[in-house]
Amino acid sequence: MQQISGGITAPKGFLAAGVCCGLKTVGNDLAIIYSQEPCVAAAVFTSNRFQAAPVSVSKQHLASASAFHAIVANSGCANCATGEQGIRDAQAMAEITAAFLNIPEDSILVASTGKIGTFLSMDKIKAGIRDALSTLNKEGGLAAAEAILTTDSVPKQVAVKLVIQGKQVIIGGIAKGAGMIAPNMATMLAFLTTDAMLSKELLDKMFRNAVNSSFNSITIDGDTSTNDTATILANGASGVVLNESDLDVFQAGLNHICLELATMIVRDAEGATKLLKIHIKNAPNQDMARTIGLSIANSTLVKCALFGADPNWGRILCAIGNAGIDIDLGDIDVYVGQMQLVKNSCAWEFDHAEAHRILSMNEVELTVDLKQGDHEAVVLGCDITTEYVGFNAHYST
Amino acid sequence: MQQISGGITAPKGFLAAGVCCGLKTVGNDLAIIYSQEPCVAAAVFTSNRFQAAPVSVSKQHLASASAFHAIVANSGCANCATGEQGIRDAQAMAEITAAFLNIPEDSILVASTGKIGTFLSMDKIKAGIRDALSTLNKEGGLAAAEAILTTDSVPKQVAVKLVIQGKQVIIGGIAKGAGMIAPNMATMLAFLTTDAMLSKELLDKMFRNAVNSSFNSITIDGDTSTNDTATILANGASGVVLNESDLDVFQAGLNHICLELATMIVRDAEGATKLLKIHIKNAPNQDMARTIGLSIANSTLVKCALFGADPNWGRILCAIGNAGIDIDLGDIDVYVGQMQLVKNSCAWEFDHAEAHRILSMNEVELTVDLKQGDHEAVVLGCDITTEYVGFNAHYST
Repeated sequence: MQQISGGITAPKGFLAAGVCCGLKTVGNDLAIIYSQEPCVAAAVFTSNRFQAAPVSVSKQHLASASAFHAIVANSGCANCATGEQGIRDAQAMAEITAAFLNIPEDSILVASTGKIGTFLSMDKIKAGIRDALSTLNKEGGLAAAEAILTTDSVPKQVAVKLVIQGKQVIIGGIAKGAGMIAPNMATMLAFLTTDAMLSKELLDKMFRNAVNSSFNSITIDGDTSTNDTATILANGASGVVLNESDLDVFQAGLNHICLELATMIVRDAEGATKLLKIHIKNAPNQDMARTIGLSIANSTLVKCALFGADPNWGRILCAIGNAGIDIDLGDIDVYVGQMQLVKNSCAWEFDHAEAHRILSMNEVELTVDLKQGDHEAVVLGCDITTEYVGFNAHYST
Repeated sequence: MQQISGGITAPKGFLAAGVCCGLKTVGNDLAIIYSQEPCVAAAVFTSNRFQAAPVSVSKQHLASASAFHAIVANSGCANCATGEQGIRDAQAMAEITAAFLNIPEDSILVASTGKIGTFLSMDKIKAGIRDALSTLNKEGGLAAAEAILTTDSVPKQVAVKLVIQGKQVIIGGIAKGAGMIAPNMATMLAFLTTDAMLSKELLDKMFRNAVNSSFNSITIDGDTSTNDTATILANGASGVVLNESDLDVFQAGLNHICLELATMIVRDAEGATKLLKIHIKNAPNQDMARTIGLSIANSTLVKCALFGADPNWGRILCAIGNAGIDIDLGDIDVYVGQMQLVKNSCAWEFDHAEAHRILSMNEVELTVDLKQGDHEAVVLGCDITTEYVGFNAHYST
């Protein structure tokens, strides 16, 4: 696997564009990703029971269509809590694009991010779609990555080149992050493309695997947004149809793209100063490991301690105990970097100054050894800062 | 029901004391509550799977004994993550007290709050127990309430007088709060006393009812501590043995004490500036209502918005959708005070300046009408402030 430059337009056969149509006060706010060749698609959506209109519409299209050609996404408005009008507007985003491209409506997936409870300005959307379609190009990936940002400070894109059956297969992706979005909750959007060909079932399974250990293993503040969408299009333009023996290589590439994008999202979390990488080792199974990791990463107290570089391991044990996991908690070791803080779930002598130094770095690795199984998971989180609270408090809708 | 002055020593036959034995750097830190007459006891403990040593020991005593005489509690050290030594120390707290009073060890319940991962100084504890026993008195309730505080700013006590069978029955209580405890997590301790007489089974059932709608319906930061303990002693000194027909009156008294103490805890939450009272109406059942209320109260985004008095209702819908409750979310109304913010889960025109004014008050009432059933619950929460984050970050263990 080789990481290469570019994002969603790195794989063969994909064009993209990002344009400014006035939904945000500044910057690109409408993105289109397009493949002339029909694509197989897979997607994972928010687990929040409130779902934004574009999530509903994209789900319908994924259920009804077998070939996909484009993703249309906007920032600046989440089109959520907008009722029937919101559904009509999300459908119209697909209809307008389909009419211009002369393709079926349900071959298009839609996504939105931004303010909740406001309606899309469809005049702006229509003009933006026309503008984007007229500028679709092979270098448009970065402009598209910019067009889905809200309070993110940097665009996020990555691509890898794999060699499969002696040929070049590329996977690319863009994402927008989970800093809090003024004035509402974060949306995690990720769009991936690949020029490999594989069945819908296989793409779905492999994409879910990759999402579980990346986008589903990160947390900023524990609030799952109403608009979260991760989707992948595979157009087969590489000429490679994946065989059984190619799956490990492709899965590794997919995992790499998703984990890189997920890491970029956490690094760019609003107000955060530190990335926390939690490694849960020797768990009875991977789900338990991830649940425990997320419980630690979501603990406000752990996040405060991380902000202050305080080796306050009692908060870590407390969060493990609150994870709702039915395992023995009597024998846990906790390390920060290489330094042991807890042995067999009990206090352990360590150098507090050195622990403080390790916790002061902008990337902190925490290891929890449960000693009861051989499964593991890595979860990414961040600190909570006074800046985060201030930002999310003092914006008035 | 009449609220009267005093706390745990208001009911007949209870004495208490609070003394300073040096576990904290300042103030009382060891409390004893005592009844010469044998008591029936009930208790509810933390749901955290990490349990402090005094929790384990008190559970053992509740299982083995049928008559209880005293509660011994200290602040300044949680006696948690202290292994076998911690268990021996918690047992010793009971043994020392029992030896002085010439009563069985298992007639004594123990509790600790304070720093996790440090051992009790048993010399100080022993001297403190002797000191407290020599000063037990009818006005000692307040001193005991002071002795269990950590970062609380005020002692918390309340008592009510009921008339049952023409006689006076009193219930009293003290509690310590759920501000964050330097340097570790909060502990919620609540000790109640009553001079009514009733069976262990009935006391247990009625106490759990009261705890569910009070201490189990509050949240500061979603972290359940390792030491949480709520317990009640009933000594029958009023001469009143409760009949079936008296239960409603007694339950109302018990509920009142628990809810008053729970409200005091939230009001005194560290760094918090506002009490948030969430009323979930017309739910399919009470558990669902409470779960939804707690999901809102625990949302960092909702807490930030409350801090900033921002009528950011999208965060409320998002938290409802994240509660993991399988109900229809299409028809929800949300009010702050009397002002409607959301109608049928959609955006609704309201006066933002007026909503901001309501949210700026130090007690905010939020009503969520689910319109699918006739059950309800009230949950108490608070805002998250820059002060909270700063305090809990910059304490270095």
